[in-house]
Amino acid sequence: MNIVVQKFGGTSVASLSTQLEVMKKVMRPYREGNKVVVVLSAMAGETNRLLALANEWVTTPDAAEMDSLVSTGEQVSCALFSMLLKNQGIRARSVLGFQAPIRTDCSFGKARIVDIDTTALFEMLEDHDVLVVAGFQGCEDGRRITTLGRGGSDTSAVAMAAALKAEVCEIYTDVPGVFTTDPNICSDATKIDRIAYDEMLEMASMGAKVLQIRSVEFAKKYNVTVHVRSTFSDEQGTLVCQEDDDMEAVLVSGIAYDKDQARITLVHVEDRPGVSAAIFSPLAERKILVDMIVQNPSKGSKTDMTFTVPKADIKQTLKVLEDLRYEIGYEDLLSSSDVSKVSIIGVGMRNHSGVASRAFRALADENINILMISTSEIKVSFLIDEKYTELAVRTLHKEFALHEGGIQQESCTG
Amino acid sequence: MNIVVQKFGGTSVASLSTQLEVMKKVMRPYREGNKVVVVLSAMAGETNRLLALANEWVTTPDAAEMDSLVSTGEQVSCALFSMLLKNQGIRARSVLGFQAPIRTDCSFGKARIVDIDTTALFEMLEDHDVLVVAGFQGCEDGRRITTLGRGGSDTSAVAMAAALKAEVCEIYTDVPGVFTTDPNICSDATKIDRIAYDEMLEMASMGAKVLQIRSVEFAKKYNVTVHVRSTFSDEQGTLVCQEDDDMEAVLVSGIAYDKDQARITLVHVEDRPGVSAAIFSPLAERKILVDMIVQNPSKGSKTDMTFTVPKADIKQTLKVLEDLRYEIGYEDLLSSSDVSKVSIIGVGMRNHSGVASRAFRALADENINILMISTSEIKVSFLIDEKYTELAVRTLHKEFALHEGGIQQESCTG
Repeated sequence: MNIVVQKFGGTSVASLSTQLEVMKKVMRPYREGNKVVVVLSAMAGETNRLLALANEWVTTPDAAEMDSLVSTGEQVSCALFSMLLKNQGIRARSVLGFQAPIRTDCSFGKARIVDIDTTALFEMLEDHDVLVVAGFQGCEDGRRITTLGRGGSDTSAVAMAAALKAEVCEIYTDVPGVFTTDPNICSDATKIDRIAYDEMLEMASMGAKVLQIRSVEFAKKYNVTVHVRSTFSDEQGTLVCQEDDDMEAVLVSGIAYDKDQARITLVHVEDRPGVSAAIFSPLAERKILVDMIVQNPSKGSKTDMTFTVPKADIKQTLKVLEDLRYEIGYEDLLSSSDVSKVSIIGVGMRNHSGVASRAFRALADENINILMISTSEIKVSFLIDEKYTELAVRTLHKEFALHEGGIQQESCTG
Repeated sequence: MNIVVQKFGGTSVASLSTQLEVMKKVMRPYREGNKVVVVLSAMAGETNRLLALANEWVTTPDAAEMDSLVSTGEQVSCALFSMLLKNQGIRARSVLGFQAPIRTDCSFGKARIVDIDTTALFEMLEDHDVLVVAGFQGCEDGRRITTLGRGGSDTSAVAMAAALKAEVCEIYTDVPGVFTTDPNICSDATKIDRIAYDEMLEMASMGAKVLQIRSVEFAKKYNVTVHVRSTFSDEQGTLVCQEDDDMEAVLVSGIAYDKDQARITLVHVEDRPGVSAAIFSPLAERKILVDMIVQNPSKGSKTDMTFTVPKADIKQTLKVLEDLRYEIGYEDLLSSSDVSKVSIIGVGMRNHSGVASRAFRALADENINILMISTSEIKVSFLIDEKYTELAVRTLHKEFALHEGGIQQESCTG
């Protein structure tokens, strides 16, 4: 049984006319003899309407009831779309989270998929050619409805593809695929044909908002090939898949940026064992996500500690650290929110040094000062003044020749 | 564990302000230490909105998908109402059809409850003081969502009361209870304090639209006391319950009417065995509901056969009978839709004749011609010209002294 999974977002199912367009997309693999599993979001605007309703009722809605409420959005879009298919004589039916069943943990509002029992699904596929699965929702062991968080339908789709061992998981979106960088900033940005899971994870977490991060983690774990493509054309999009030699031959695959960064510096912290824990544990407890961390070389028994947090968390972070001033033992607390992070991403970096130094030079030539650096196996990130973000992205995009397919390692001068 | 079941309709849950009123009703039995099971309909207008959406999509929506679609209405109202309760610190949760579970057959759109497994419900009642149950919906064995048909929330409520052995099942409505007849026609109509299941079945099936018929059948079968009462006051309403001596002492309990009647006459039908089957089986196959049937005495080998059907079915009925003209063997086919049925109802009739003849006289005094008569143990129905409906209802209401509690059997002159 050849199975193709397709996922469509809220804009695609928002009206009868857009659903008819979606039906055309479904008909392609259907006519080729595949079983098609279509994962749908709620009609655009519906989830927000339901959230607003809940907030009219109470200030802090119960999380479990909220999930039961908002999950009706996908239930409606799936029922309507199934009606369209059945009306065309196609053997189709809707499948809700509890019917699949898509089993999740009990974290209402941000549940994680634990397991998809495929017994019932394969039975349904015997009698049906198209299953219309409600995205974004699952069901915990006590039979209560859960939701997977914003963008959760991507994860639903990838999870279905993994469970059903589908040929491919097509994610339809309003852009033609994944780009080497944000085309709004850099007109030279080009569509990437194939990108490795790890690269996509770095791209997604840094603002290339094409896919929910968790769906990429899922795809990587179960080796699901994800095809990100446009709802508005039949063109090939971007394949997110396992790393291969061709990908590694390219030094840099993309440039990402993230303006949601704020920098905190603790001046003259005592350089003693346990001081890092004293600083970062209280932040972790408050679910403040610390990203880049730099510790300057000690001067005597003192050191400076600099790190970044999301801009929205800066006030709370400062409050926590001020309260712990004597416990941690620092002299001064500095902060700045006029910063951003620009990152160079590529699995090719694994086998090649020299990317960072080449980037330094390129940024220096444009007089862009680097405030912090952090590196991983496949990524180099720079913290810079926010106002230089666009210039830095364009400079690096050009430096690594991403407008013409990137630099092949043979030609790398690292 | 004392359990009270309460059911509220669409108008009662339509907005935040009306839901706050419903909350007050729930607080009464809750404060008295009862566990409360609240059965809710969809917010007024929501079911129609969803039906309209489906009809925009396709002309003949798939029944199973339709149920999945419209069941979101109750899901939304239950989630919102549970949020309100939880916000007040009440241990409450919503319960959907598949969560209870309320098991039904597979007749999508008009499913019948097969069974309510109370294991999960009693477990929920250990941890919660109020369960907010979605009315109108159930779940068939294949885990698909079903709905019980218009007014199905009444049946949901009675079924919950039966399954949980609740003290009482309160049905809140926009009228103060069940009346001796339609107050819009007869200003003398009075509220009935207690009415027997069988009487209520006759009243309900004939246009006293307070309770869905099936819910009364259910209540009778499981001996559930149903309290029909007003959402807008704390006054006692009408108890629908088992027949007792007091009820039997009253000759007539109420007058019902039904304008949705059309009369068909087959003139000079051959009076041979099997002719009735030849007429009525084809109608039954087309789900045309035949109500009153009268066969005139034979003249030789011929007879006249007259019966009534709902007005909407008259064309189809005539078509069926015309097609079968030679098979059945009749001389002429007559029809009239300007007729209505007026019925006298009362368990007291069981032990007393004379009700019919008394009614004949009263109607004759007003020059109302009786076209057909049918009788059962607790009911006498007259088919009359539709234009006399209101006059007949008022005449019979007065004749049997329903404005002053009805005629006690001692004083009956039958």
